[in-house]
Amino acid sequence: MTNNKRPLILISNDDGVNAKGIRELVGFLRPLADLVVMAPDAPRSGFACSITCHEPVSYKLVRQEPGLTVYQCSGTPTDCVKLAFYSVLEREPDLVVGGINHGDNSSVNVHYSGTMGVVIEGCLRGFPSIGFSLCDHELDADFTPLKDYVQRITQKVLDEGLPPLTCLNVNFPKASAFQGIKVCQQAKGLWEKEWIPRQEAEHVYDMAGEFRDTDPEEERNDHWALRHGYVAITPVTVDATDYEMIRRMKTWF
Amino acid sequence: MTNNKRPLILISNDDGVNAKGIRELVGFLRPLADLVVMAPDAPRSGFACSITCHEPVSYKLVRQEPGLTVYQCSGTPTDCVKLAFYSVLEREPDLVVGGINHGDNSSVNVHYSGTMGVVIEGCLRGFPSIGFSLCDHELDADFTPLKDYVQRITQKVLDEGLPPLTCLNVNFPKASAFQGIKVCQQAKGLWEKEWIPRQEAEHVYDMAGEFRDTDPEEERNDHWALRHGYVAITPVTVDATDYEMIRRMKTWF
Repeated sequence: MTNNKRPLILISNDDGVNAKGIRELVGFLRPLADLVVMAPDAPRSGFACSITCHEPVSYKLVRQEPGLTVYQCSGTPTDCVKLAFYSVLEREPDLVVGGINHGDNSSVNVHYSGTMGVVIEGCLRGFPSIGFSLCDHELDADFTPLKDYVQRITQKVLDEGLPPLTCLNVNFPKASAFQGIKVCQQAKGLWEKEWIPRQEAEHVYDMAGEFRDTDPEEERNDHWALRHGYVAITPVTVDATDYEMIRRMKTWF
Repeated sequence: MTNNKRPLILISNDDGVNAKGIRELVGFLRPLADLVVMAPDAPRSGFACSITCHEPVSYKLVRQEPGLTVYQCSGTPTDCVKLAFYSVLEREPDLVVGGINHGDNSSVNVHYSGTMGVVIEGCLRGFPSIGFSLCDHELDADFTPLKDYVQRITQKVLDEGLPPLTCLNVNFPKASAFQGIKVCQQAKGLWEKEWIPRQEAEHVYDMAGEFRDTDPEEERNDHWALRHGYVAITPVTVDATDYEMIRRMKTWF
């Protein structure tokens, strides 16, 4: 039975429905809202906003109890959100949440992240959307220190909403306690040493990489905040237009 | 033999190395520059900025002649760019180009497009980058009317460069001639009716969709420009930060 007085949150991720991060997130958010989870049936890290154009996508119910329904889906994180809206949500959610990701989605990783794919999709559909990520890739990462912050940030967005086209990318440093919250800019920089050649075969590579901050001392950046023990909230716009460049191009053609 | 006096352009796409669109692009750009192509070995539409984190990625040489080298790659469009930089480019390119895509990448499609995945990756690495797309999904789409525009826009960017973090998303209407160029904003709107249930199985869906413009009469939008026969150039920023929201959030925590 759905209680229409309680908020409804749609949850997905890119680490898969069985990842510790999404299970912890469900535990943190159950006191705040009814939850519907539609998450990939296997890990799909680095899937960005990808969609499945040329193959069928399916889902199935894996758990149902008062205030919580869980589905797993064969598609990408973005497919999960699209299919949840199309097929399983009985009313519009108050919020779409991605995570909690096992690993850092700050800085340029916003472009590669399947967790942020969930969030961008929620935002493009017109719903307040938040991504939560912990800078710890381990399967058994400790999410406990995040609980109060996840609840506080989620409640704030449930109360205040978010402007159209704006979503939040929230990253937590790996730590047992945090210095507080910083609202940040996306750090500038780039991945280097991105591939490791396989020894046994020519022209075969595994992805790796080291991130180089091009402006590491800039205190407004999410990387700086994370390195200094803060929870970094980077507001993200899904309007990719470069308005300044429109002005510059007036004389081009 | 590489002639270091000529510009060098790295090309990729998401329709695959054998698609007509990339072959036509190579023909259009050969008079302007030396070309290195690293493109997916099969169609990978809708792959966005996805990367291959958990499997090996490989490439192989498929064609080499003066001024043109072509590789095919097992990875995503973004992997192609990353691997080209790591493994095959002998010098830094002057430009990274994605396309010519078979299909519309204007408006919110910038988030789902593998062609724009190529462009965003080039831009994140600090190189001027352009995506070209034709609003025609057909395998044998006619790219001939695009030739002069593709050459003119490419030459302009080779001459002028682009600011850091800015790239171009160029879309052509399906037409035998164009009204001219409009520099545009990303149209606002959303996909609806996104799934078609399979008859033979429960909870199995194929992706479809109809796009609904939420502001169809807005002449600054790329959708408006395309509907009215113009070549739409939407400048795109890879800095996803919502700076206005940073200001609004000052009192939040």
